[in-house]
Amino acid sequence: MEAHEVLEKVSRGEMSVGEAEAFFRREPFEDMGYAKLDTHRKLRNGAAEVVFCSGKADDHLVSIFQRLWEQNGEVFGTRASRAQYELVRQELPELTYDAVSRIMKIEKPGKKKIGKIAVCTGGTADISVAEEAAQTAEFFGNHVDRIYDVGVSGLHRLLSRLDVIQSANCVVAAAGMEGALASVIGGLVDKPVIAVPTSVGYGASLNGISALLTMINSCANGIAVVNIDNGYGAGYMASQINRLGERS
Amino acid sequence: MEAHEVLEKVSRGEMSVGEAEAFFRREPFEDMGYAKLDTHRKLRNGAAEVVFCSGKADDHLVSIFQRLWEQNGEVFGTRASRAQYELVRQELPELTYDAVSRIMKIEKPGKKKIGKIAVCTGGTADISVAEEAAQTAEFFGNHVDRIYDVGVSGLHRLLSRLDVIQSANCVVAAAGMEGALASVIGGLVDKPVIAVPTSVGYGASLNGISALLTMINSCANGIAVVNIDNGYGAGYMASQINRLGERS
Amino acid sequence: MEAHEVLEKVSRGEMSVGEAEAFFRREPFEDMGYAKLDTHRKLRNGAAEVVFCSGKADDHLVSIFQRLWEQNGEVFGTRASRAQYELVRQELPELTYDAVSRIMKIEKPGKKKIGKIAVCTGGTADISVAEEAAQTAEFFGNHVDRIYDVGVSGLHRLLSRLDVIQSANCVVAAAGMEGALASVIGGLVDKPVIAVPTSVGYGASLNGISALLTMINSCANGIAVVNIDNGYGAGYMASQINRLGERS
Amino acid sequence: MEAHEVLEKVSRGEMSVGEAEAFFRREPFEDMGYAKLDTHRKLRNGAAEVVFCSGKADDHLVSIFQRLWEQNGEVFGTRASRAQYELVRQELPELTYDAVSRIMKIEKPGKKKIGKIAVCTGGTADISVAEEAAQTAEFFGNHVDRIYDVGVSGLHRLLSRLDVIQSANCVVAAAGMEGALASVIGGLVDKPVIAVPTSVGYGASLNGISALLTMINSCANGIAVVNIDNGYGAGYMASQINRLGERS
Amino acid sequence: MEAHEVLEKVSRGEMSVGEAEAFFRREPFEDMGYAKLDTHRKLRNGAAEVVFCSGKADDHLVSIFQRLWEQNGEVFGTRASRAQYELVRQELPELTYDAVSRIMKIEKPGKKKIGKIAVCTGGTADISVAEEAAQTAEFFGNHVDRIYDVGVSGLHRLLSRLDVIQSANCVVAAAGMEGALASVIGGLVDKPVIAVPTSVGYGASLNGISALLTMINSCANGIAVVNIDNGYGAGYMASQINRLGERS
Amino acid sequence: MEAHEVLEKVSRGEMSVGEAEAFFRREPFEDMGYAKLDTHRKLRNGAAEVVFCSGKADDHLVSIFQRLWEQNGEVFGTRASRAQYELVRQELPELTYDAVSRIMKIEKPGKKKIGKIAVCTGGTADISVAEEAAQTAEFFGNHVDRIYDVGVSGLHRLLSRLDVIQSANCVVAAAGMEGALASVIGGLVDKPVIAVPTSVGYGASLNGISALLTMINSCANGIAVVNIDNGYGAGYMASQINRLGERS
Amino acid sequence: MEAHEVLEKVSRGEMSVGEAEAFFRREPFEDMGYAKLDTHRKLRNGAAEVVFCSGKADDHLVSIFQRLWEQNGEVFGTRASRAQYELVRQELPELTYDAVSRIMKIEKPGKKKIGKIAVCTGGTADISVAEEAAQTAEFFGNHVDRIYDVGVSGLHRLLSRLDVIQSANCVVAAAGMEGALASVIGGLVDKPVIAVPTSVGYGASLNGISALLTMINSCANGIAVVNIDNGYGAGYMASQINRLGERS
Amino acid sequence: MEAHEVLEKVSRGEMSVGEAEAFFRREPFEDMGYAKLDTHRKLRNGAAEVVFCSGKADDHLVSIFQRLWEQNGEVFGTRASRAQYELVRQELPELTYDAVSRIMKIEKPGKKKIGKIAVCTGGTADISVAEEAAQTAEFFGNHVDRIYDVGVSGLHRLLSRLDVIQSANCVVAAAGMEGALASVIGGLVDKPVIAVPTSVGYGASLNGISALLTMINSCANGIAVVNIDNGYGAGYMASQINRLGERS
Repeated sequence: MEAHEVLEKVSRGEMSVGEAEAFFRREPFEDMGYAKLDTHRKLRNGAAEVVFCSGKADDHLVSIFQRLWEQNGEVFGTRASRAQYELVRQELPELTYDAVSRIMKIEKPGKKKIGKIAVCTGGTADISVAEEAAQTAEFFGNHVDRIYDVGVSGLHRLLSRLDVIQSANCVVAAAGMEGALASVIGGLVDKPVIAVPTSVGYGASLNGISALLTMINSCANGIAVVNIDNGYGAGYMASQINRLGERS
Repeated sequence: MEAHEVLEKVSRGEMSVGEAEAFFRREPFEDMGYAKLDTHRKLRNGAAEVVFCSGKADDHLVSIFQRLWEQNGEVFGTRASRAQYELVRQELPELTYDAVSRIMKIEKPGKKKIGKIAVCTGGTADISVAEEAAQTAEFFGNHVDRIYDVGVSGLHRLLSRLDVIQSANCVVAAAGMEGALASVIGGLVDKPVIAVPTSVGYGASLNGISALLTMINSCANGIAVVNIDNGYGAGYMASQINRLGERS
Repeated sequence: MEAHEVLEKVSRGEMSVGEAEAFFRREPFEDMGYAKLDTHRKLRNGAAEVVFCSGKADDHLVSIFQRLWEQNGEVFGTRASRAQYELVRQELPELTYDAVSRIMKIEKPGKKKIGKIAVCTGGTADISVAEEAAQTAEFFGNHVDRIYDVGVSGLHRLLSRLDVIQSANCVVAAAGMEGALASVIGGLVDKPVIAVPTSVGYGASLNGISALLTMINSCANGIAVVNIDNGYGAGYMASQINRLGERS
Repeated sequence: MEAHEVLEKVSRGEMSVGEAEAFFRREPFEDMGYAKLDTHRKLRNGAAEVVFCSGKADDHLVSIFQRLWEQNGEVFGTRASRAQYELVRQELPELTYDAVSRIMKIEKPGKKKIGKIAVCTGGTADISVAEEAAQTAEFFGNHVDRIYDVGVSGLHRLLSRLDVIQSANCVVAAAGMEGALASVIGGLVDKPVIAVPTSVGYGASLNGISALLTMINSCANGIAVVNIDNGYGAGYMASQINRLGERS
Repeated sequence: MEAHEVLEKVSRGEMSVGEAEAFFRREPFEDMGYAKLDTHRKLRNGAAEVVFCSGKADDHLVSIFQRLWEQNGEVFGTRASRAQYELVRQELPELTYDAVSRIMKIEKPGKKKIGKIAVCTGGTADISVAEEAAQTAEFFGNHVDRIYDVGVSGLHRLLSRLDVIQSANCVVAAAGMEGALASVIGGLVDKPVIAVPTSVGYGASLNGISALLTMINSCANGIAVVNIDNGYGAGYMASQINRLGERS
Repeated sequence: MEAHEVLEKVSRGEMSVGEAEAFFRREPFEDMGYAKLDTHRKLRNGAAEVVFCSGKADDHLVSIFQRLWEQNGEVFGTRASRAQYELVRQELPELTYDAVSRIMKIEKPGKKKIGKIAVCTGGTADISVAEEAAQTAEFFGNHVDRIYDVGVSGLHRLLSRLDVIQSANCVVAAAGMEGALASVIGGLVDKPVIAVPTSVGYGASLNGISALLTMINSCANGIAVVNIDNGYGAGYMASQINRLGERS
Repeated sequence: MEAHEVLEKVSRGEMSVGEAEAFFRREPFEDMGYAKLDTHRKLRNGAAEVVFCSGKADDHLVSIFQRLWEQNGEVFGTRASRAQYELVRQELPELTYDAVSRIMKIEKPGKKKIGKIAVCTGGTADISVAEEAAQTAEFFGNHVDRIYDVGVSGLHRLLSRLDVIQSANCVVAAAGMEGALASVIGGLVDKPVIAVPTSVGYGASLNGISALLTMINSCANGIAVVNIDNGYGAGYMASQINRLGERS
Repeated sequence: MEAHEVLEKVSRGEMSVGEAEAFFRREPFEDMGYAKLDTHRKLRNGAAEVVFCSGKADDHLVSIFQRLWEQNGEVFGTRASRAQYELVRQELPELTYDAVSRIMKIEKPGKKKIGKIAVCTGGTADISVAEEAAQTAEFFGNHVDRIYDVGVSGLHRLLSRLDVIQSANCVVAAAGMEGALASVIGGLVDKPVIAVPTSVGYGASLNGISALLTMINSCANGIAVVNIDNGYGAGYMASQINRLGERS
């Protein structure tokens, strides 16, 4: 550790106090024992490992994927178009693409999955967002159960799968239109529910704002909300919670 | 009928063509066979019978109540304050007041009630709006069942009353916060559901706008929405529907 | 009925109490006498019979249409593009398509239509939404009268068709821009009015939000509102109301 | 005229070119032939004559009223509370106050009124705003006809007064809730309609925003809109239009 | 006049009272002395003469243009694409098209123009909307002065044209972005100002909503506002006002 | 368990199959082995244990507190006014009140607290909401660290407490105005962050909507959002997560 | 400086490397040469010197004022009520209060003022906000010129003061209603303009949101915007700019 | 100067007083010593020098670029497409184009750059807007430091560049999504910060409105905001401030 070395050198008289001061002023973070920060950033904020592909320039995208694959032996990108996949696959032939979730990745084989996350959707049109959540959680090493098309307008569908949902450490509920799914699930489970409003709908759905408001105003407890269509964010947070529940 | 009389007079030469033209130009509606229109207005738009008390000047309020009582033998006012009730009661001692619904009225005794309307609420705070709906429907001669505090965060409460709700001709669903009640009911009954968003909630409930959006975007069928806190409007429309179902 | 059978078996000692408990816990709904629920779902929420085509994957769409046609002998889809029609027609040559309403369907011949629903529009640009409502209602067995282009800026057009509108059990009023049509009709009839805001307009019409607000704030009675451009929803609810009025 | 005098002095050698340049640079407007501007400002923007009383400090209000009365022999204030009236009347005993319009004024007697402006309202709750418009127009010398409580939910009330409305040079239409009155009137007259949304309503009326949007999106021609509750602005503009129609 | 004839016939015994009643009930408007209404509708609401081309089906557009041309000897359409022009010109070779205003028309030659309307814009990007206003006003027989690109960020441009603006009977002010032009002009003239917010701008301009709010809140007097980009509506109302000022 | 008893009775021939069917149809939930549901509801959705005091009628509030205290030996209410406290204390002298969090409660002594939740605020004005979260979490048996007034405009305050924050299982971040605290914390920890927008601010803070939008759009991972000022909801969900992390 | 001392001690062997590491990890900021940060915070973010009084608890407010006065010999608070002033004056008799700006302060005498800031308002109702800006700037040592009530509806008022405005280093423009003042000034000066929307207005002014949008969309250059009614923020930033222009 | 000449002529009797009056009335501005105004407009509002290319007609764009190049020897255009560049380059072969900032220009060589402006972005997607700001500032003769991708979710990136940011006269902070960058920077520097919300984001980012609200509500001091994506406006204002700091 560099900060340690600097201090050692000061202690041994190999570095002047003034030089040490300059060092600490210039690099307060990286050299300050924040290696931990660096390490957990890899997992956490995706700059290192998870690539938000949409809008990236072609050459940037290819080089980012190459660098991450070389560094980590795996790489994971969200919101990728098929064209982007075709492009990057030319350099990384092992790359796979899922058209539903729009995820492209190379994943280390034999990853162990722990705990359980339930990912639910109100309708079939929400599945794209749900798959982004589910596959993100799986990539981060969590076991995922999918319970799709269990919207509140046909309650028996949801209730018949209740045992599966209730056995998870954390539930992701993705729904558009009126977004009531999260409230109903919140009333039936005693685990945290991550609600994902989707942009599914038309007219007064306001591209997901209505579902977002529904979920934020939920009268059930244990519900918190991420951005519209943010399957990745929901999958990431569900992973954090599930892993908390499985540690020890 | 006046139009008929005018034409009779023209036919008998008792009125000139010019006088008749002036008559038709001046009174195109009232005298044109629209007596029906006048008659149904009484029932329909409340100008004659239902008084929106809030904001009315004291003397106006008293004289309107007196005139309506004299004319119809009953009178019905919504959104009345207790002070307004005390005021009007000085002239109309038979007047009664319900502090929950804020309705004050004199009602003809022995009114026959037909059919069935189910009035549901998500929480106890929505009961004020629901009572406005229920008592309006009762005043117009409908039988009403009240199913209160059956919000989606505790689904079994709703499901245990399902038989009552399913047996109604029309359901009124009043809910604030996320307003998901209407969708869930809409998925469980095959009768029209009148959804009433209420201003219950705080923060992102936006004084009922969130619940309104939820209800308008409902993925269930057979749901239509009235204004925030508009219990009267819901009760009125439910009455129209229930009476349709009971005629013949 | 399965629940009945299970209880019979318990009564006859052919099934243990524990097995019966497991059964009731696992299948609280489908096996609990909710056949009624299942049956009315067919009519009601369209999962079985009415297909929202927009956004469906090609192969899903074809197989859904095939399955529903086989099951019911008829099939009804809304928001279909011509390309979707061409696709499905390859498998179901009897399929017909209406470019105005964007409905594609196979309908059983000789369907009896009962009662009367009046479907009105403010302008010619609202006709697409109105046809979705009208054809939905007709598919569900209701008689429909169309009264188009009777917007409030030319009131005599509306008034000259008033007798037709007043004779219906239920009125659907579709209008964009300022959406005042529903209020004016609500003041002239004593039957329920289902208001459909349309996205017709520009600038401050906010893609239908302005018309939605107008209709929700209507000072006339007996009006309730569905989502912007939701002709299907209006037609479905009008069908529920009209059939109530014609039963017995 | 000062600019004239300056130039005369330059011409006569009584003022140097430098002094004249300084003058023109310093006072480009008042001295530049903009007397006309000054004169019409008195009539137009109310800084001189019309006082927006709400929020004015007591001493400011009294001195403004005194100064204007001394200068013009009359004075006109809008949005005045009764307390403000009591205050100012101590100095100006001739001051009168109208509690409905909240206007307080001293008006020159025997003012001739020309032309005709029709001021209409949807309901009785809009009358306060309408009176502000009507009394403003009257103060500026226009003849005003009042046609109140003719909202679109009871169309025959409006139609029975149509001849009065059609004979005006300009119509002011004040309405809250859904604000449809302006569109209906716009379809029945061929004169300019000034639409005033009012804050009358509740819930989704959004304190007048809904009525504003309705009026801005009107499908009728010849309608323009002023701010919510801006009776003064409507009355002022109606005055400009009516006087145009009566000059010559 | 038909109503007159009917009454004459009743008076002469050539028509029974019952037949006359049926006539008056069926046609309360067209036959009721509202010929004036019909006549001014031609001028006013454009159903007869002004065609909103955008979104019209090709065959409808062609037949409407043909019918109007045959009936009136002229025809005027707004929001036309060049493709629509090419299409209709095949049937009506005299048709002309202006790509800036997107107006296509055949106009009677030698039309006399009266009075004066000033049409102003804040920037060059607002000219398209302004030309729709100006050419509409010219088609209806008004003289128009164009004062373009005089936005408030370069005030001297506006002030140097002030004499032209002040000499008009009515001013149309079209501006996007912050839309301050209308207020500044309203402070400089004593004639009605019709403010047209345009959708010019980006970001927080919200497609014209910001400019609309600016104009509605104007602190200047004599300003009223039409819908975003509604050049036609502004030109129409300006025409009504200008013609009022020139009658007699 | 009742369902068990019913089946036992059927098995023993003490109850007919028809009676059993009626039982299962009438009470599908409570008697269906959902005791678990009932039990966890106590913990979860607060109907049993946590009382939202604001707006409750006086007599209701007193009786709810009494019943819960008798049933559970403790009782916990949020959003209580001092007047409500004074009222209930007359019946429950042990009741305590915290004016900052507005919580009133009787808590069982010696409650063991596990794990760690960090509750942070941007400013001092957010402390009221934060205390609601912290005391809720403590009531449910969690250890809480408070890190207040560490808003992003003085970053060193936050960074100097980073070790405390990073050692928690879950972080609650409450902030008003621009609400940036959650993002900054999200970038510094690898545990779930529950973001609570507060209504602190003025002008464009829109009573917390701005902070809500900031938090929903966070570019950091592992953040989810609850309603504006919903300290209780955040504390509840943080409790669920922390307890997950400490079970085993 | 502490960091220096720590390093000196390490260098002299008086502190172990481990102890030094712990120090740097614990206090990365305050001890890291960020004294500069601390120093400029005093001037900048007002935690030290400027007190936002509104909402502060009485005892907090008094102690903050006392501590700051003792520390700095002066103290400055914004958004203070008269009651707060009376309270604090009991402890600090030298405290002065300005009811217009709602500022209470003790200011060191003989403060030198440099440069020039012009503070302008559209109307008289904006003066409260403008005075908060002006007095803030004066407290921070800037010379301020006030140019009030020069709104765009009376342009000559603004133009007659143009020389004063053009001679400032920075202009603060405070306006409510349509907020056009900033754009007009931006077009007339070549110095930065800080625009302050005020909540002055009614109806569609949306409590200042309309003025905010106007200013953000300004077509003039050199304009940036602070929060609604944020006179302090504008005065603070103007001070930063003016002092930049006067250094050297 | 013309005004001077006119006065000279009046003084010499070569021009009548009436002619001079007409001159001053007609041209109050251009001839009134506002040459300064003209001169600074060149620098300031870009009508002369900076061209907003987006939406300009091809022939207009070419002629504007040619005229400006001839007049000034340099020319600068923002929001240019590559196609526009190809077009104008045919006439001005020296024209250069930057695809990131979308700026096309001919710049005089050897321009001296003074002072320092720091331009920061939250992410890489904000660089396009930041480059518009940076290159605008450079064109106007300012030295610019770029500090990109230092968003708040990875704080150490920002802190490691703090010395560069703190040494600037003015900071431009461009960020989308939650837009928290400006607040964090505002808390770390004592110079003015121009915040530029960008439209980067999705869902509840509302095309930049969320970032705009965040920035307007900043709890840090010394921050003001320009329109969404308005890099040019930020660069222009930063230039004004930086040059103030470097004059003398």
